[in-house]
Amino acid sequence: MIRPTPAIEAIPATTPFVGPEQLMREAGLRRLVRLGANESPFGPSPKAIAAMSAELERLGWYGDPESLDLRDALAQKHGCNQQQIVVGSGIDDVMGLAVRAFVAPGGVVLTTRGTYPTLNYHAIGYGARLEFADYRPDGTPDLDALLEIARRLRPALVYLANPDNPSGRFIGRDDMNRFCSALPHDSLLLLDEAYADFVATRDLLPLRIEERVIRMRTFSKAYGMAGARIGYGVTAESNVRTFQKIRLHYGINRNAQVGALASLADDAFRDRVVAATARARSDYYALASELGCGFIESCTNFVCLDMETAARATQVVNDLLRRGVWVRKPGAPPLDRYVRVSAGTEPMRRAFAGALRQVVAEVPA
Amino acid sequence: MIRPTPAIEAIPATTPFVGPEQLMREAGLRRLVRLGANESPFGPSPKAIAAMSAELERLGWYGDPESLDLRDALAQKHGCNQQQIVVGSGIDDVMGLAVRAFVAPGGVVLTTRGTYPTLNYHAIGYGARLEFADYRPDGTPDLDALLEIARRLRPALVYLANPDNPSGRFIGRDDMNRFCSALPHDSLLLLDEAYADFVATRDLLPLRIEERVIRMRTFSKAYGMAGARIGYGVTAESNVRTFQKIRLHYGINRNAQVGALASLADDAFRDRVVAATARARSDYYALASELGCGFIESCTNFVCLDMETAARATQVVNDLLRRGVWVRKPGAPPLDRYVRVSAGTEPMRRAFAGALRQVVAEVPA
Repeated sequence: MIRPTPAIEAIPATTPFVGPEQLMREAGLRRLVRLGANESPFGPSPKAIAAMSAELERLGWYGDPESLDLRDALAQKHGCNQQQIVVGSGIDDVMGLAVRAFVAPGGVVLTTRGTYPTLNYHAIGYGARLEFADYRPDGTPDLDALLEIARRLRPALVYLANPDNPSGRFIGRDDMNRFCSALPHDSLLLLDEAYADFVATRDLLPLRIEERVIRMRTFSKAYGMAGARIGYGVTAESNVRTFQKIRLHYGINRNAQVGALASLADDAFRDRVVAATARARSDYYALASELGCGFIESCTNFVCLDMETAARATQVVNDLLRRGVWVRKPGAPPLDRYVRVSAGTEPMRRAFAGALRQVVAEVPA
Repeated sequence: MIRPTPAIEAIPATTPFVGPEQLMREAGLRRLVRLGANESPFGPSPKAIAAMSAELERLGWYGDPESLDLRDALAQKHGCNQQQIVVGSGIDDVMGLAVRAFVAPGGVVLTTRGTYPTLNYHAIGYGARLEFADYRPDGTPDLDALLEIARRLRPALVYLANPDNPSGRFIGRDDMNRFCSALPHDSLLLLDEAYADFVATRDLLPLRIEERVIRMRTFSKAYGMAGARIGYGVTAESNVRTFQKIRLHYGINRNAQVGALASLADDAFRDRVVAATARARSDYYALASELGCGFIESCTNFVCLDMETAARATQVVNDLLRRGVWVRKPGAPPLDRYVRVSAGTEPMRRAFAGALRQVVAEVPA
């Protein structure tokens, strides 16, 4: 009889995100307007596509396990050195490494209730004790509440997404500076900046290399390479050396490295995506006004539309899916009354708007 | 002060494999004949390249976290169902999941001293106690020694590569059947079949879905997709459900899934690679005879050439690298006196043969 370890057996069977492919199979849908995972409908930079296309014939070779060329380019971008960068198969991977490396079983992981669930997945997976601060009523992560709990419980790890997911809110550099300084110095801050490319750099917390902060970035959002699975963390070299002991050295696709490197050399493309994303947000705001829904102004590539109650938001999501439009909704109050829709192309936005108008008219408020 | 957990802090800083990119930087080489990592110089199937190329513009979308289409195709190939398949970022990933899920800290992992070191990396990373059987003098994994230790120590996990790496030896189905039956029933057998595509299917252990066996396969070798990072395990559904609780759900590149699926539909390409690989082995055998070296007949895409002592083998590897030819050597006796060279294309073999002739003449026996 083969049994998992007691720690693994104790983990409840959960899936952080059901993928659209499974939803399509279950619903018998052949096409889906994908607006549920904050993917970029604009895809990768044409320069990245060209570089990856040319590289496909060399896919028989493993990728560089150290991502040396990419880390050189990232170090240049961030004004640090490459020993301060860890590359992973997306931020999810870096997040898992951070929990594994820095949170002993029973250690406390502090996060905001209802933000990115994959952090919770890793925390549960490594036997951590999850503690939550609630969002402020307006959907902003509550830095004061996080600090209060952090001072009391001295968590091994504090997670914050900024810009935040799923609200789309952004916390400016002054507030962030105060927050970082006030955190207990033995708590590691895991700062998820997946959506930072949609914010002006001058508004972001300046980069200071510190052992107690890991800043995570990704090529999945503005760079349009979610399918490639490549992201990274910037932190003190000592932390990168720790990750080096446990990370999957050959885990990152060769072509993902090549595409990421080419993407970094195409700022103009990223800027066009950021501008197109802003137009998508404006469209969603206008749609919300037309339908008389509230919404949260977003600094990301998605917008939360207020459906007034969680039950109605759930029904709207389900009804949209039946019409072939896939969006998601936050799982916890106060944001669970919202539907979260990702920035689509114009045709995708039209499809969403058409379906939402029908659904909102049918589902009683 | 941020410190890793005591368990992580206790892990020594090691790297299972230094990549060729780093060797090139260190040696100041601009080109390298890559014959060190048992990669396929024949690359992916043209059908896989075409499918991946067409898919690049959709790289903005995450890959299916459940790899449903690929698992359907694999289930058909193996005559099992897709709930019995776990897909990972290469066998390395599946191996890490198996150690994490089934070996509690302090639990015993039994392997052959000097075989695939990434298993050891994961075992150490999760706090397991590594135990070793030695190879037989001819370089075959010693099933009797493994069984004797297994009966005595009742390891949580037993690792066996068949065909074996780094020897290239293959253990036939009758011996494998006896081995599987004789293992303690509470030991999980992690059977690494990365090189199984180079062996006739009729010689392999027939597939029986059992909780106590995980058979691992990869697209990195005969399918020529090492850079894509995609492999899988076939085992009982209960084990797959366990992995579902801890695996990185969005860890696998979208294009890797697409390429793997297309590869499975191109058996003719794989057969050509297997035939070309056999020619490469014959070339290496002929070269060994010409140089008066012994060699191990291999059932894989690499060959071990006998350099008589470990010190000489090390010097040959280093001298080849200075000439721009990258091979590796096994790290533990009795195989550490060999140099292991991967099947190259004809030009790569010529480059290797030319360099080896010089090096062998220069390095005293």
